[in-house]
Amino acid sequence: MIDLDKLVSESFSKQGLMATLGAHLTQVSDGEVHIALPFSTALSQQHGYVHAGAITSIVDSACGYAALTKAPAGSEVVTAEFKINFLRPAVGERFLAIGKVQNAGRLLTICSGEVQAFMGGSGKVIALMQATIVSVGQPAG
Amino acid sequence: MIDLDKLVSESFSKQGLMATLGAHLTQVSDGEVHIALPFSTALSQQHGYVHAGAITSIVDSACGYAALTKAPAGSEVVTAEFKINFLRPAVGERFLAIGKVQNAGRLLTICSGEVQAFMGGSGKVIALMQATIVSVGQPAG
Amino acid sequence: MIDLDKLVSESFSKQGLMATLGAHLTQVSDGEVHIALPFSTALSQQHGYVHAGAITSIVDSACGYAALTKAPAGSEVVTAEFKINFLRPAVGERFLAIGKVQNAGRLLTICSGEVQAFMGGSGKVIALMQATIVSVGQPAG
Amino acid sequence: MIDLDKLVSESFSKQGLMATLGAHLTQVSDGEVHIALPFSTALSQQHGYVHAGAITSIVDSACGYAALTKAPAGSEVVTAEFKINFLRPAVGERFLAIGKVQNAGRLLTICSGEVQAFMGGSGKVIALMQATIVSVGQPAG
Repeated sequence: MIDLDKLVSESFSKQGLMATLGAHLTQVSDGEVHIALPFSTALSQQHGYVHAGAITSIVDSACGYAALTKAPAGSEVVTAEFKINFLRPAVGERFLAIGKVQNAGRLLTICSGEVQAFMGGSGKVIALMQATIVSVGQPAG
Repeated sequence: MIDLDKLVSESFSKQGLMATLGAHLTQVSDGEVHIALPFSTALSQQHGYVHAGAITSIVDSACGYAALTKAPAGSEVVTAEFKINFLRPAVGERFLAIGKVQNAGRLLTICSGEVQAFMGGSGKVIALMQATIVSVGQPAG
Repeated sequence: MIDLDKLVSESFSKQGLMATLGAHLTQVSDGEVHIALPFSTALSQQHGYVHAGAITSIVDSACGYAALTKAPAGSEVVTAEFKINFLRPAVGERFLAIGKVQNAGRLLTICSGEVQAFMGGSGKVIALMQATIVSVGQPAG
Repeated sequence: MIDLDKLVSESFSKQGLMATLGAHLTQVSDGEVHIALPFSTALSQQHGYVHAGAITSIVDSACGYAALTKAPAGSEVVTAEFKINFLRPAVGERFLAIGKVQNAGRLLTICSGEVQAFMGGSGKVIALMQATIVSVGQPAG
C-alpha cells in the first residue's frame, strides 16, 4: 500500500518554488491536498496584496498533488492546463489552497481547486481553479 | 500624453513577487508587454524544471500590464481570470513572457499571452494564456 | 419580491437555440438552475454521441440563468467567458445541466456548472464548467 | 498521402449538430479549418442575437478538425476541454469560425480558435477560444 503522505511530501520538498514562496504542505489524503502560504511582502503585487501568480502557484501544486494521490503507482503527473478565477483581492494573513480530484481518468485527471484567505479566524474563498493533469512516465518494469 | 514605459515600470517595481522570482520588465509598448525570467533552482518544481506557477506569474503580469497600456488614464487593472496551457516542460536558461491585448473593452480587456523558453539562441513556446482583465478604480475627478 | 421562476422561464422561452436543441428548463431556485436535454441524433457528433457544443450550450444557459437569479432586479446577464472540461463521451438517453452561483459580485458573477448523462436511472457527470457572467443593462427608471 | 479535405468533410457530414445549426465547412488546410454559420432565429438567445452555445459549437468543431489534420493517420480526436471569451454580442448576418493548431503533441494538441461576425462585407472578431484536443483510438496495425 502506498504511503500517500510520504509520496507527496518527498516530491513537495523538491519544489524549489514552494520554499521560495514560503508555502508548506498541510494535508494529504486520497484525492485531496492542502497547501498553506503565510502572507509576505515578498509575494506582493503593486497594491500590496498577494500576487495572483503566488496564489495560482499554490493551488496548481495542490491540484497536481491531489491528482498524484490517484495516479497509478510509480507514475508522474504534469499540469496540462488550468483556468482560475479570482473572486476578490488576496488580502489576508495566510492562505490555504485546496486541490481535489473530480475525475481520475486513465490519462487525464480533472481537479478543482480553491484558495481561501484568512484574517483572524474566518476564511473567504478568493480563487477557484479547474485543472487538467496528465499522468506520465510510468517507469518500466 | 501618457508615458507607458514609466506607467508600467513604476507599478512593476512595486510587485514584490517579480523581484522574488527574479523577473524584469524588458519591453513596454501600446498593447504589448514583455517580462524576462532567468532560470533559477529557486523556481523549480520536483524535476528541476521551472514550476508552472512561476511561468504563470510572469505571463499573468505581462497580460495585466499590456491591458494597463490600453486602460483609461488613471485606472487600475485587475486579473479577473485566465486559462493557461503548458505545451512542454519549462526547460531553459531564460524565459520570456509576452502579453498582448486582443480586445480592449470599456470594462473587460482580453489578452493573449505566451511564454518562450530559450536555450542558447533559439526559443520555443512553452505556454499559452488567454486572460480577462477588469479595469477598475478610476480616481474621482 | 421577484418571481425567479417567471423571470427565468420568460427569458428561456425566447432562446431559439434551446428550442432547436430540444432543451427545457426543469428547476429554478435562488442561485441554481437546471436544464434537461433528451438525446437526439440531430445533436450528434461524428460518432453518434451528443456533440460537445450541445452539452456546452445547455450548461452555459444554466450558468447564465443561475447568475440572473442573483442579479439586481431589472439587470441582464451576459456570458463573458467560460471553460469546460469533458470527462467522458456524452452517451445517454438524456442530459441534465446544473448551473450554480459560486460568487455573485457587483459586476462579475462566477458560476460552476456540470452536466450529467443518464442511461436508465443512474447518472454520470460528463462535463464541468467554470464561467464568468457580467451583469449589464439595468434599465433606466 | 492523406486527403485532408476528404478526411474532414466525411467526418463533418456525420455531425448531426452542424446540420441542425446550419453550419458548413468552408476551408480545410494543414492545421487550419474554417466553418461558416448563417444567422437564423433558430439559434438565438433571449435578445435575438446568436446564442453563445451555437458560436461555441462551430469553433469547437473547427478546432477539433484542425487538430485532426495534424493527427497520426487513422487516429481520432476528442475535445478534452476549452476556454472561450466572448468579446461582443454575436450580431451579424453570418459567422465564420477559424480553428488553428498551435502545437501538435504526441498526445495533446493545443488549438486557438476565433469567431468573426459579418454584417455586409466587414467582419469583427466576437469570440476567442483556446482548446486542448486528445488524439485517441489509433486502429491496431
